[in-house]
Amino acid sequence: MNENVLGIVAGVLTSASMIPQLIKVLKEKNVKDLSLVMLLVLITGVSLWVWYGIMKDELPIILSNAFSVLVNLSLLICYFIYRKS
Amino acid sequence: MNENVLGIVAGVLTSASMIPQLIKVLKEKNVKDLSLVMLLVLITGVSLWVWYGIMKDELPIILSNAFSVLVNLSLLICYFIYRKS
Repeated sequence: MNENVLGIVAGVLTSASMIPQLIKVLKEKNVKDLSLVMLLVLITGVSLWVWYGIMKDELPIILSNAFSVLVNLSLLICYFIYRKS
Repeated sequence: MNENVLGIVAGVLTSASMIPQLIKVLKEKNVKDLSLVMLLVLITGVSLWVWYGIMKDELPIILSNAFSVLVNLSLLICYFIYRKS
């Protein structure tokens, strides 16, 4: 497989992986088994990838990670809405 | 910040983000709110990143994503052990 195609497929999969998790949380309104630390570390990490992409001027890195930031921020908001206090 | 340092910090954070999730699952033995589809898509994605790293001969990409494969495979095994049938 061409390495650019491979990189794009890999990037789409890792960026999109949290969408099924977000859908599950929105449906079941339950986040008890999700790790808040995981979400915070992940959001920090993908935000830094966006910054890295901006510095290197690499649009695919910027776009895929900015998308991940959005999905994971949504998941974080759901976490605080749905956690049992 | 130097862009290589930034890339390394970002890579370590995104690779390590699933460790707190794995620890939580091992402690609480509960995976009801985790999405199996998320795990499968993520493992496929990071595996393709390892392949990409091998093709581009970029050791940081290979190592950080191989580490992610290990953590997420452990989480997948836990998923099947702890899900209520």
